[in-house]
Amino acid sequence: MKRRMKATIAYDGTNFSGYQVQPNQRTVQEEIEKVLTVMHKNEKIVQVTASGRTDARVHATGQVLHFDTTLSIPLDRYAHALNVQLPSDIRVVKVEEVASDFHARYNVHGKRYRYIWSCEKVQSPFRRFYATPTNGVTPDVEEMKKAAQYILGTHDFSCFCAANTSVVDKVRTVTALEFEWHGNELHMIITGNGFLYNMVRIIAGTLWEVGIGKRNSAQLKDIVASINRTTAGKTAPPQGLYLETVYYPE
Amino acid sequence: MKRRMKATIAYDGTNFSGYQVQPNQRTVQEEIEKVLTVMHKNEKIVQVTASGRTDARVHATGQVLHFDTTLSIPLDRYAHALNVQLPSDIRVVKVEEVASDFHARYNVHGKRYRYIWSCEKVQSPFRRFYATPTNGVTPDVEEMKKAAQYILGTHDFSCFCAANTSVVDKVRTVTALEFEWHGNELHMIITGNGFLYNMVRIIAGTLWEVGIGKRNSAQLKDIVASINRTTAGKTAPPQGLYLETVYYPE
Repeated sequence: MKRRMKATIAYDGTNFSGYQVQPNQRTVQEEIEKVLTVMHKNEKIVQVTASGRTDARVHATGQVLHFDTTLSIPLDRYAHALNVQLPSDIRVVKVEEVASDFHARYNVHGKRYRYIWSCEKVQSPFRRFYATPTNGVTPDVEEMKKAAQYILGTHDFSCFCAANTSVVDKVRTVTALEFEWHGNELHMIITGNGFLYNMVRIIAGTLWEVGIGKRNSAQLKDIVASINRTTAGKTAPPQGLYLETVYYPE
Repeated sequence: MKRRMKATIAYDGTNFSGYQVQPNQRTVQEEIEKVLTVMHKNEKIVQVTASGRTDARVHATGQVLHFDTTLSIPLDRYAHALNVQLPSDIRVVKVEEVASDFHARYNVHGKRYRYIWSCEKVQSPFRRFYATPTNGVTPDVEEMKKAAQYILGTHDFSCFCAANTSVVDKVRTVTALEFEWHGNELHMIITGNGFLYNMVRIIAGTLWEVGIGKRNSAQLKDIVASINRTTAGKTAPPQGLYLETVYYPE
């Protein structure tokens, strides 16, 4: 009997060339498909479909994917069965059985990402792959919060979209954009109904420039209105970014 | 003018074959000596002396070493000058000028280590090199604390010393041995005037066996009295161990 499975996975993006399969590169998708294909006796390649891709060095704590299985492994042992064969930089957190028409990408209702800056003067060697170092610079978070208000809501976010994209409709809705201090680390948590290519990293890079006084918060209004990538700030580095939650309709 | 410098360093032990120089291996000591030697114009190898060695995959947040320098770099820029040349898995936290007879090993007054177990059911991929997984097992910490009472004080700690050691006097004093929960992670923090080879990892491994009911806490009294390594538990894995502080007389 064929069952459709929804898997929630976490991965340390450090040693991956991103999520999506690419020739001659180590990718998250390929590692998972390899394990599933072996589990299914190599009859055919078991393909997995994720909520979307993540770039090289970007992490995930709650990426979601779906695949079809013919195995009779009980649901409560499925995650463990995958984890014993997967490399330790990918962990399956949860496996659920879903309706046969569930689609991890088409059904996405929203996503939440986290971006982390490490503001220690001497960066901890333990955080070098997991946060973006600021070399001791502490930004003005109140200004970053003011700037964030111009990003909330529904806009054409062309200003925050990498130029090399084929997506035509760039209207998205950002429903929440918050900042939290965790010790010396600043977290930006952003939720929306969908994100364009590099959108979170460009928002992080632009708000960072506000935080260090290179731009003022009110400029964000013009940047968003410009519908032009060149008006926004630099793309923040990948290692600070985490795909945290993917939302689906109940 | 020759100055003696005391450096406090942190390192991620994951990609090192330990602290101490070994032929054809990547070690912390060699990386630091390479950078110092280049900074000193390659006139001769600048040797560094640490408080003691750490094994492969063991971490440090407060290892201490000394070396002599003829460079006129101001004290407040010395750490930065080293950090720009060091690999990112070693960071110099602090450099101080000390008396010419300061010795990072001979003058050690005491040390503090931390051992971390990750008790999550599915281990976070982000903690795989930084904590020892328990596969969801949560130990009885109250029993571990009772057992720890038999370790406190001055004893011949042969029971907690790796067999392959050349040290003759195995009497040491453990001044504190505490447990703390940090979320799903259990930390053991141990302080003493000195530690034998693998002593912290054997204590961690033995107390862990108490925590999971494989031994009872009162057995620790006999283990310590036995002066015999074979009575104690397994050596806990290296990636959970951190050298945290080295103490010197004021």
